[in-house]
Amino acid sequence: MTFYKQVRPILMAIEKEIGSHLEARTPLAEEVSRYILKSGGKKLRPLLFVLSSHLCGCENGEEIRLAPIFEYLHVATLLHDDVIDEAHLRRGKPTANNVWGNTIPILAGDFLLARALELAASSGLLKMVQLLAQTTSWLAQGEILEIVKTDALDLSEKEYFEIINGKTAVLIAASSRLGAVLAGAEEDKENALQKYGHRLGLAFQIIDDVLDYIGSEKEFGKPVGHDIKEGKVTLPLIYALKACTLEEKKQVKKQFERRKEEDIAAIVTLVKAKKGLELATNKAIEFVKEAKEALSIFPPHPAKEILLQIADFVIKRRY
Amino acid sequence: MTFYKQVRPILMAIEKEIGSHLEARTPLAEEVSRYILKSGGKKLRPLLFVLSSHLCGCENGEEIRLAPIFEYLHVATLLHDDVIDEAHLRRGKPTANNVWGNTIPILAGDFLLARALELAASSGLLKMVQLLAQTTSWLAQGEILEIVKTDALDLSEKEYFEIINGKTAVLIAASSRLGAVLAGAEEDKENALQKYGHRLGLAFQIIDDVLDYIGSEKEFGKPVGHDIKEGKVTLPLIYALKACTLEEKKQVKKQFERRKEEDIAAIVTLVKAKKGLELATNKAIEFVKEAKEALSIFPPHPAKEILLQIADFVIKRRY
Repeated sequence: MTFYKQVRPILMAIEKEIGSHLEARTPLAEEVSRYILKSGGKKLRPLLFVLSSHLCGCENGEEIRLAPIFEYLHVATLLHDDVIDEAHLRRGKPTANNVWGNTIPILAGDFLLARALELAASSGLLKMVQLLAQTTSWLAQGEILEIVKTDALDLSEKEYFEIINGKTAVLIAASSRLGAVLAGAEEDKENALQKYGHRLGLAFQIIDDVLDYIGSEKEFGKPVGHDIKEGKVTLPLIYALKACTLEEKKQVKKQFERRKEEDIAAIVTLVKAKKGLELATNKAIEFVKEAKEALSIFPPHPAKEILLQIADFVIKRRY
Repeated sequence: MTFYKQVRPILMAIEKEIGSHLEARTPLAEEVSRYILKSGGKKLRPLLFVLSSHLCGCENGEEIRLAPIFEYLHVATLLHDDVIDEAHLRRGKPTANNVWGNTIPILAGDFLLARALELAASSGLLKMVQLLAQTTSWLAQGEILEIVKTDALDLSEKEYFEIINGKTAVLIAASSRLGAVLAGAEEDKENALQKYGHRLGLAFQIIDDVLDYIGSEKEFGKPVGHDIKEGKVTLPLIYALKACTLEEKKQVKKQFERRKEEDIAAIVTLVKAKKGLELATNKAIEFVKEAKEALSIFPPHPAKEILLQIADFVIKRRY
């Protein structure tokens, strides 16, 4: 991350602010919240909010004060997701459900979601609350669609994009858009940052799904082919299947239904052979291009430079 | 319910409104939401909101439009609670987790919570959103405390009240208080309705807990002693234990740890013998008295009359 040096002071200010809203009547709510918030993570969403605020001329500290909203919302969904996926590890650390069982993380997620919206309301900006509530409802719907479509090898590209739009892109889009809202920027700036975040979010999730086929467990915290194991069909597999003969498709169907270790390995090999990873990465590159183009309405600005670099980084990242 | 005839048109208007915000990109989110919303229930929270609005002079229809907020929030917590409690039946109907498994109801709860806050934001009243977000965070904390204190026979009266405050009273208090907020009423009216709802909520939950010791499964939808079976210590048992000899306490401890059918029956019998039910009911009666007194600042008004009758009904109800 060549831009890391530039964003470091912002990230440190965000880190300092995160966790200052967790005091709870029940110590356990606070404990679980801190545990998940400290599980690392890139703090991408609060960072985008702060940079977008700066780009739109708001740099009075309010953007730092409100930045935790986006991390709280994000980790609230992670808490619920991990319960739903029965996940044991996240970024190499035991998940909250692994430590506390299922029930407490469900409630800690509700607690964090509520704290995020409380903090948003403290901005005095109804539009912010409105957009965040809408985003939360989309997040839940994206997740529901993903679950409904689990084990569906015939998932269409359109359905895939609906899922990743809901589960990833809407919150990233809201993070950058709301920077403009906080700054009271004109509608075209708000729309530009919405588009930037949306395309960035789609690219981000596609690359996440590509990395599932290549990342080592050590680097990425998940074994290769984890999505397939979970019955999740993602873009690389969708593209690979398009290039398959009828015979090959039948073969994949059998392997996908059995999903033993050797089946997963065979599917991973096939996806690579059919150029599923390149094709999906190309799609992500297209989205990153659109994200960067969306920022063209803004004059030169240090925050703009960083946002452009973040977009490029989404493609390059290997974790 | 002698007042039922009077509130019937309001309840019908609320029922009509509930469910008009559930359209979702994923049909399943809507389906689960409708399922839980149609599981009956008294619609107490939206009713209190509407009556409080009327009492404070707002009767322009906005109170009906916003009333579903309180039912959505309530059933969102029910969805999560039933997953947490691994409940199979609610009001004699299979729970959502019984029908769809655990994962979908968690997300449907998130979806409904988000829709509630979206609807609240549409009021244009930041204070409403703020209070609801705070309420949601308290609800989650109350539930967490209840779980932490499960199987704790030494639960104190103070801890019991902290739990029922979070899990029941705060939302009922918010429902009546926000009627005043919507009407733009003076602060003393807001505080009076907050107090009314809070005390009503405490009484409501105490009676719920008393009914757990006497209600038949047919009437109440739950078998007698269900709370004990779940390791939940409530006010009747706390009061009964206070009246026990050391020997009796030791006996209860053994029975509570084993919790076989005959143990539960023995504890129920003891609680009755030690007047735990009367003492708890008396506490509820005190709260109802406080609730009614809180309304003394209001001049005579049809809505006031109904609120007073609802308070009395909380004590009389047998389901």
